[in-house]
Amino acid sequence: MDDKLILGKKTVAEIDNKTKEEILKLKESNIKLNLCILRIGENPDDLAYERSIIKKNDKLGINTKIKKLDKNIELKDLKKEIKEINDNKNIHGILIFRPLPNHIKEYELKNLIDPKKDIDCFNPLNMAKIIENDDSGFKPCTPEAVIEILKSYDISISGKNIAIVGRSLVVGKPLAMMLLNEDATVCVCHSKTKNIKEICKRADILIAALGKAKYIDNEFIKKDAVVIDVGINLDEDNNLCGDVDFDDIINCVSKITPVPRGVGAVTTSILARNVLKAYYNTINN
Amino acid sequence: MDDKLILGKKTVAEIDNKTKEEILKLKESNIKLNLCILRIGENPDDLAYERSIIKKNDKLGINTKIKKLDKNIELKDLKKEIKEINDNKNIHGILIFRPLPNHIKEYELKNLIDPKKDIDCFNPLNMAKIIENDDSGFKPCTPEAVIEILKSYDISISGKNIAIVGRSLVVGKPLAMMLLNEDATVCVCHSKTKNIKEICKRADILIAALGKAKYIDNEFIKKDAVVIDVGINLDEDNNLCGDVDFDDIINCVSKITPVPRGVGAVTTSILARNVLKAYYNTINN
Repeated sequence: MDDKLILGKKTVAEIDNKTKEEILKLKESNIKLNLCILRIGENPDDLAYERSIIKKNDKLGINTKIKKLDKNIELKDLKKEIKEINDNKNIHGILIFRPLPNHIKEYELKNLIDPKKDIDCFNPLNMAKIIENDDSGFKPCTPEAVIEILKSYDISISGKNIAIVGRSLVVGKPLAMMLLNEDATVCVCHSKTKNIKEICKRADILIAALGKAKYIDNEFIKKDAVVIDVGINLDEDNNLCGDVDFDDIINCVSKITPVPRGVGAVTTSILARNVLKAYYNTINN
Repeated sequence: MDDKLILGKKTVAEIDNKTKEEILKLKESNIKLNLCILRIGENPDDLAYERSIIKKNDKLGINTKIKKLDKNIELKDLKKEIKEINDNKNIHGILIFRPLPNHIKEYELKNLIDPKKDIDCFNPLNMAKIIENDDSGFKPCTPEAVIEILKSYDISISGKNIAIVGRSLVVGKPLAMMLLNEDATVCVCHSKTKNIKEICKRADILIAALGKAKYIDNEFIKKDAVVIDVGINLDEDNNLCGDVDFDDIINCVSKITPVPRGVGAVTTSILARNVLKAYYNTINN
């Protein structure tokens, strides 16, 4: 079974090694990379993500500044904070934890973040670059993690039939565009798809990103397909699990990402690499 | 055969009637809609498109102002022209003919056009709204014409398996997102797709937007499929033809758009409707 596992740590090591090497070179010129995280309130998910980002950044030599904001912060004050960070030449990357509190709407903020510092692809100008196949922008971390994991395991994308289950703005839709840009044939399925098993069963690569625990069983899988599981859910015993029923499909697949230790492990490495890219944006500006 | 034809003129009549009615109401309040077209040089394609836009706008009561610019216009002068039109409160919609001359790059202009006046979806902020399923922006005319033509012929989109052949930035990619937003299951094929006939043959609705004369023959068609032909090409006898081989597939399909008289006929109606939308943008601003 172990030879079927696609583990995030291999991809992480490859990405982090390059990032670290470049950061070390910059340090020789006394350049220090800085990420600023805007956290509104004390949401436990945000705190967990924050810890994993800090851990990664510490390892790679990126300084992480946390801007803690009151959970009832007024929109105008939040806008002021964003403006300050945009204007601060010593801060290279900006990340605002989402979902935002209910009283702040995404559309009121997303255009404000300097697209050159927008390491989490919040600004629509970066989203548009994905459609445009313009690599100068930032891509959302999870779809990028999917692509990187495939590449690091030498799973070719060009010409493959890929089914994506899920059409969210953070994963399914941008990932579809990114895979098209990599010359895959892409089919996007979702809750309204009528013959979803049949469609998935034809895919060389199946990407599950619908957010339902263990939804994808062996009836969705073509023999020897590659399965990438983007889901992070809790199962009936409160254990972490993905959108695919791992035990049910492991015998059908050629490769599969487990949950945890799969795609999710790669996202903080993408974020860190994006801080480096954001730094290059500032000097090329 | 005639009962199989999806004719643009039916959709055009429906769209234009609504547009005209609203424009007449505005006229009663002495409001006149103005579109400004920026045309660089005397490209025959541009001139033909210009004539058809003027004809449509005259019919509907929209004033069309043509800004004729020298084919060697410098970038800075072109930027100044765009700024002036952006700032001119009497101009509601802006259209710049593309492709641009070689010395002007799209990325140098597209962010400059006021997104609220950008009736041709040149500004990436409007493209991003398509991914975001945010209807407040402008969509590119051809994909919108495809959706409108399906709706006006009561061809349901939700839950349908739709194959799009072609992944261009002006048609294939935005159309894929728009059809996903309409709850279709969408598969995008292109030159690197390996089993393209097989994939197309499973589609309830096949949309050809690859730009190759008569490429799609009966081997691509599921019995009784709906075929929408976005292509505009010249055949071996220099006659207009689409991307599908009409005579070869007419017996297999349930409905089909001819070329000409199909999708292409609808685009100027979409543009005119967008000028009206742009006007509402200015008063809601």
